[in-house]
Amino acid sequence: MVTNATSLEPVKALLFDVFGTVVDWRTSIAREGEAFARENGVTGVDWTEFADAWRSLYQPTLEKVRSGAMGWQVLDELHRMSLERVLEERGIRSIPEASLRHFNCAWHRLDPWPDSVAGLTRLKRKFIIATCSNGNVALMVALAKWGGLPWDMILGAELARHYKPCAEAYLKSAAFLRLEPGECMMVAAHNRDLQAARASGLKCAFVPRPKEFGPSGKPDLEPTQAWEAVARDFNDLAEKLGC
Amino acid sequence: MVTNATSLEPVKALLFDVFGTVVDWRTSIAREGEAFARENGVTGVDWTEFADAWRSLYQPTLEKVRSGAMGWQVLDELHRMSLERVLEERGIRSIPEASLRHFNCAWHRLDPWPDSVAGLTRLKRKFIIATCSNGNVALMVALAKWGGLPWDMILGAELARHYKPCAEAYLKSAAFLRLEPGECMMVAAHNRDLQAARASGLKCAFVPRPKEFGPSGKPDLEPTQAWEAVARDFNDLAEKLGC
Repeated sequence: MVTNATSLEPVKALLFDVFGTVVDWRTSIAREGEAFARENGVTGVDWTEFADAWRSLYQPTLEKVRSGAMGWQVLDELHRMSLERVLEERGIRSIPEASLRHFNCAWHRLDPWPDSVAGLTRLKRKFIIATCSNGNVALMVALAKWGGLPWDMILGAELARHYKPCAEAYLKSAAFLRLEPGECMMVAAHNRDLQAARASGLKCAFVPRPKEFGPSGKPDLEPTQAWEAVARDFNDLAEKLGC
Repeated sequence: MVTNATSLEPVKALLFDVFGTVVDWRTSIAREGEAFARENGVTGVDWTEFADAWRSLYQPTLEKVRSGAMGWQVLDELHRMSLERVLEERGIRSIPEASLRHFNCAWHRLDPWPDSVAGLTRLKRKFIIATCSNGNVALMVALAKWGGLPWDMILGAELARHYKPCAEAYLKSAAFLRLEPGECMMVAAHNRDLQAARASGLKCAFVPRPKEFGPSGKPDLEPTQAWEAVARDFNDLAEKLGC
């Protein structure tokens, strides 16, 4: 499954997309929403639908930063802007600040997919494993402690000061490791992320996550290009990368 | 041993100096020097003295960057400049580039002090543990993999674009974690590092490393201020911080 089509350089580091690829944001946010509802006496809300609505503002909000319409802000701040809008649209008001802040940090408490920790632990023996996410450093550190994710390093948008799929997010992540782009492999459940990584010279591994968007969602189930690796989950990826 | 003299905020993250505090650079560089000598047929060099000479150029070289006399360069590059000078002073010439590069990366292969991994593992259960070193990201990642150091995050000079003891190195490290300076505790074997950290509002823990500079060295054996914690080693620090 691993070919040298794009470059003969051996892969030294694996860079991981996180939301959807490593962790299951949808069921975790829904669970956090239910706790928020109990704490604040909010009733009549479908928290899975709420999770989808909150997430649906993700790309449009990032796009405001990417386009320059909005100055640089870390994802924790962007999540907060989106949260306030989604709550407002549902008429949920007068929530104490501490509770809002805790709910906004629901993104710090997302559960890993069942294979994530075991697969990463195995991959870490052979490769540098780092995040290359749009999540900020504090969020990624919290997520790692929450789920026991054994990262060697948190890289990605905040350190690059550019959100994926901008090329800088991938290239600066490789540069911090003093590696060539071709010595890094981007791992993601989303073809669009991999397309951008490949355009910057990184190798790519596709790991579909069929449950990311729930039963009626439309996840990427098939690779859209001949990625250097395609695996069922992280254990399978470890197998295919010779770990 | 832990007081709230400077602030009532609880400590959430421990930021570690690395060279000398977590790893034993002197005996590791001497060992790497002996391997370099064997590979290149170099004789008559005292490699412990060589390690001291190489390290003695560390602060003067950093000072060139801090003062603005030299533009920003990561520590791997500064180490290389110093290495070339120390070799030249000893008449060691005509070394193949690959061997020079490998020897320069001796700083990626420094052994932890005997208590470092066990102590950090214990501290990690209660705190975020991160580096706050002048070493660059690639160097720190390599060092962690070499010695099994379980960092949650690599922070410090490269991400701050300022070398310690500049205030930015401490303040930006706290900021990446979205913590107040007083929620961070700097851990170091060097009073000067702690003085600068305290001046920026961080709490401080002093862990002396009597063997850092060898039998005739002059390490900091006593705290020069009433630091919030003083410990014999990292296991003792874990004990004193209630881990």
